[in-house]
Amino acid sequence: MRTPRFRRTEPKGRTAEERANAKVSRPDAREKKVCRPRHVHSDHRTSIAPAKKRAAALVSQWHRSVRSAAPPPPRPSSGSRPQETPKLTSKRIDILSDSTGETAEKVVRAAMLQFPHSGVDLRLHTRVRTKDAARPILERAAQDGALVVFTVVSPELREFLHVASYEMKVEALDLIGSLIGKLSVYLDRPPINMPSGMLPLSDEYFRRIEAVEFTVKSDDGKEPRNFKKADIVLVGVSRTSKTPLSTLLAQRGLKVANLPLVLGVMTPPELEEAPQDRIVGLTIGLDPLVEIRKARLRQLGMSVDTAYGLKEQVKEELDYADRIFKAHPSWPVVDVTGRAIEETAVIILETLKEREAAKNSVRPPT
Amino acid sequence: MRTPRFRRTEPKGRTAEERANAKVSRPDAREKKVCRPRHVHSDHRTSIAPAKKRAAALVSQWHRSVRSAAPPPPRPSSGSRPQETPKLTSKRIDILSDSTGETAEKVVRAAMLQFPHSGVDLRLHTRVRTKDAARPILERAAQDGALVVFTVVSPELREFLHVASYEMKVEALDLIGSLIGKLSVYLDRPPINMPSGMLPLSDEYFRRIEAVEFTVKSDDGKEPRNFKKADIVLVGVSRTSKTPLSTLLAQRGLKVANLPLVLGVMTPPELEEAPQDRIVGLTIGLDPLVEIRKARLRQLGMSVDTAYGLKEQVKEELDYADRIFKAHPSWPVVDVTGRAIEETAVIILETLKEREAAKNSVRPPT
Repeated sequence: MRTPRFRRTEPKGRTAEERANAKVSRPDAREKKVCRPRHVHSDHRTSIAPAKKRAAALVSQWHRSVRSAAPPPPRPSSGSRPQETPKLTSKRIDILSDSTGETAEKVVRAAMLQFPHSGVDLRLHTRVRTKDAARPILERAAQDGALVVFTVVSPELREFLHVASYEMKVEALDLIGSLIGKLSVYLDRPPINMPSGMLPLSDEYFRRIEAVEFTVKSDDGKEPRNFKKADIVLVGVSRTSKTPLSTLLAQRGLKVANLPLVLGVMTPPELEEAPQDRIVGLTIGLDPLVEIRKARLRQLGMSVDTAYGLKEQVKEELDYADRIFKAHPSWPVVDVTGRAIEETAVIILETLKEREAAKNSVRPPT
Repeated sequence: MRTPRFRRTEPKGRTAEERANAKVSRPDAREKKVCRPRHVHSDHRTSIAPAKKRAAALVSQWHRSVRSAAPPPPRPSSGSRPQETPKLTSKRIDILSDSTGETAEKVVRAAMLQFPHSGVDLRLHTRVRTKDAARPILERAAQDGALVVFTVVSPELREFLHVASYEMKVEALDLIGSLIGKLSVYLDRPPINMPSGMLPLSDEYFRRIEAVEFTVKSDDGKEPRNFKKADIVLVGVSRTSKTPLSTLLAQRGLKVANLPLVLGVMTPPELEEAPQDRIVGLTIGLDPLVEIRKARLRQLGMSVDTAYGLKEQVKEELDYADRIFKAHPSWPVVDVTGRAIEETAVIILETLKEREAAKNSVRPPT
């Protein structure tokens, strides 16, 4: 039905011996503290094509190369320049950040969508804030022929990365430097040049945390009394993405509650008491929903002939939801069929914004 | 205690009349469908310094200029070139994306952290996939003196944006073009040039959705039987960021359960039965926790002298948690004091990765 965006790769685990050899050949490996102070940098790898089977060891998906079946070639100790530069068989992108690397990783992953099935290994180097911390990363990238992408706000460190990568013949790309430069000109003021991880936590941060807590506690109709406190109340039958949509919107600082519509179960009175312009209905095509429900049943090890997955039953449910939506013409109804939750979230926000704008306008837009 | 990252701006609402005038002066305003098809673009605005009071109308934070107290200057109709270009009093960044604009917004927000209190208005234009859709956005940016930042994968549209912004004298920045170019050279293959919003949903996407659902349902110790199915189980006293950390990790495709440690309440037997190398303890400094608890009580309208916020009580709780952690030396314990959840999440992932690596190594790293 759907084609996977990434190659379905099943990395074979190395044998214990291979792993041991690989480990031994890394003279630069060193023990790290569990709770390291802020200034210590470190790296974790994250694979574009993680092992599909979840039974695989925890977090192995972050540090296993896609083609890790063969042990890596022996590596000269960090700091010495090798006579020859053994290139990796598989491609690797080193993401170097002075904070958590979240933004950089997001951009790289977005760009990588344009190169499906590329089997590229992403390696994240976080809290890199000094030349001494950055140099070995560039050196390894040079040895392995990896591409380096960085988000660093210190002009000195940025300059160092530009110069050193040029000298070491490492392909490197500054992800945020031009933007900060443009912003500085546009806003006519200098940047503060402080890594975001070192900035004090903002009001916006705490509002977001609060929104996430509210939203998780108000999932699945569990707290109907929260409907009137919510910024958005999502309403729809089972498997219309209510939960993931709610948490995604919560990441933007919105308090979201959601309520499943269940055939034969009355909606709680709190729904009518909540501000009606904050309620959004979710709907989905009948056939896609039947497919999703059947897949869900298979996943749970249940028979696909359970009422939950039967077309007639699902149709009745959707009709029931439809009647509720028709009885509340002020609720916008968003069709989630075939949409990623990110797209549905944008549509919900736009819809509510337009509604708000229309409400505030004396005459409706023509 | 903490200084806010952004200016505490309280935008005054315009009067209904001002809003009406502003609306009437936009001859290009048009009605939009609630559930628009994928190819239709639209925009919503998102403010860097949203109104603090949540009582303000819903989603107004996305489309209210920080300095919206004064109505905007009358605008010539879209398409005609004005004789003079009236500049905005407040600065604006137009984010133009061929998909949801999520990545672009994230990068711009990260860069804006380097210019605190700048009161810049962000405006998001999503699903812009044609020159006809892009042109009016550039024209308005030219009129208003806004900065344009874009993430567009079509080479034709990207080229158009470069050329047209130059001709219209609009400051514009291509956020992803150089990266896609570099990747194309590095991977030695052409990009598919398809907006991510038009790509089929990936296995990774569905795994992430499933992880979020699992995590929300396993919050707050509600599903102890899920401990053994979880990738990570977070354990800690109240207000150690368990819930927001769990959902953040879930966004990365990890199934997370969390369990609050409550003084005098035994941990459920399922915790001992779960794989111990997936359990992570969370701790926090006594004084910061007392502060956070008292703030929480104030927020709930309760007395700060409630046991929940009393130093002696909080200390007893932390001691209790500490005894549990000591009884489980295999659990890493992460101190969340003063850390953003994004940073704590990275530390947790690194810690588990190191543990995994150490387990797989025949001899421990030196």
